Amino acid sequence: MSLSVFGHDDIMSMEKRYRAAFINSLSGFKSANLLGTSDAERQTNLCMVSSAFHLGANPALMGVIIRPDTVVRDSLENIRQLGVYTLNHVSEAMLTAAHQTSARYPHDVSEFDQVGLTPLWRDRFNAPYVQEAAVRLGLVLREEHTLAINGTHLLIGEISEVHVPESCVKDDGYVDIEQAGSVAVSGLDSYHRTARIGRLSYAKPDCFPEWLD
Amino acid sequence: MSLSVFGHDDIMSMEKRYRAAFINSLSGFKSANLLGTSDAERQTNLCMVSSAFHLGANPALMGVIIRPDTVVRDSLENIRQLGVYTLNHVSEAMLTAAHQTSARYPHDVSEFDQVGLTPLWRDRFNAPYVQEAAVRLGLVLREEHTLAINGTHLLIGEISEVHVPESCVKDDGYVDIEQAGSVAVSGLDSYHRTARIGRLSYAKPDCFPEWLD
Repeated sequence: MSLSVFGHDDIMSMEKRYRAAFINSLSGFKSANLLGTSDAERQTNLCMVSSAFHLGANPALMGVIIRPDTVVRDSLENIRQLGVYTLNHVSEAMLTAAHQTSARYPHDVSEFDQVGLTPLWRDRFNAPYVQEAAVRLGLVLREEHTLAINGTHLLIGEISEVHVPESCVKDDGYVDIEQAGSVAVSGLDSYHRTARIGRLSYAKPDCFPEWLD
Repeated sequence: MSLSVFGHDDIMSMEKRYRAAFINSLSGFKSANLLGTSDAERQTNLCMVSSAFHLGANPALMGVIIRPDTVVRDSLENIRQLGVYTLNHVSEAMLTAAHQTSARYPHDVSEFDQVGLTPLWRDRFNAPYVQEAAVRLGLVLREEHTLAINGTHLLIGEISEVHVPESCVKDDGYVDIEQAGSVAVSGLDSYHRTARIGRLSYAKPDCFPEWLD
């Protein structure tokens, strides 16, 4: 393949929306999650995030990036107020509904109602899960960092509850999210199903990794 | 699907490696990149990271998480010393080689040589790209945060150069990384090719999104 090279000046001189689409594509495939929150009056909020990432297993931590200038602002206020939120894997059947949560609905409107997804409340946890999701996480906010360089917020949450299909949890703890139907995202708006190439054995210096059946 | 529920105590009582596999699976699909660095003597280092994520398009920023206790430590020292690094998308043809960079090679050994990948030097940029990669990014370190909660390092880099296949850059700036052959990761060791479901139109409150051609 013939590769094009873009330097710093090329990037900075791109038209704003073109650059957003271009740069958003470059990190690689991204996770697709619905972020569920509520305020103290149980007014719910739901928005799509492609920025959730693994941060550590002990304690079980996940990061999520929130841009200050987006519709995610209501969710951020809810998280700061009640200290909890959910992340729910997006699957193909709920894809257009999940994408639609990005629309700029008024503050007092719940995206659950507007897009046709169902809030699921558990025990005394003050954030709604998404009933239709096969993989659901309940998180408690542990740290918030504002990144000086562009004002984005990094929320670090500890996983307090996990819902996963029983058959997707393998003997070694691996959760088969492909089997669970989770999708991947690239760029701002491209969605992908996956097909497993395989799992590779733990890498050691003296031999090449092998494919695990 | 029947869902299993795991609470905080269930998670914390999991055997350590089981928990690592379990929790690593939960964020969703992850990007697969090779992180290329060098020290001042051009001793190169290469390691697989599944933690690169988009942070902003103006300026063009990417984050990457580095755990303090891993083989990535040499790479972290190189980045601090020279202030630059590359991220190179992993494709199917180089998958076992890329995975093998996770092995604990001695400090004075280059993973490029050990796994059979080729360093590519550009101009006066002090970090090697991976010749075999179809999507390559050169980055300049802008911020480093140590996350108090578990000692991991968040590196924020500004993209200074992008190499992409010409045919993968679409009219609106979207880069088709599926066409470029980039793979996705789940958990610690599972690799996936992707199949596009589609791209969805920009979400607006008054109508549902449509699939773009």
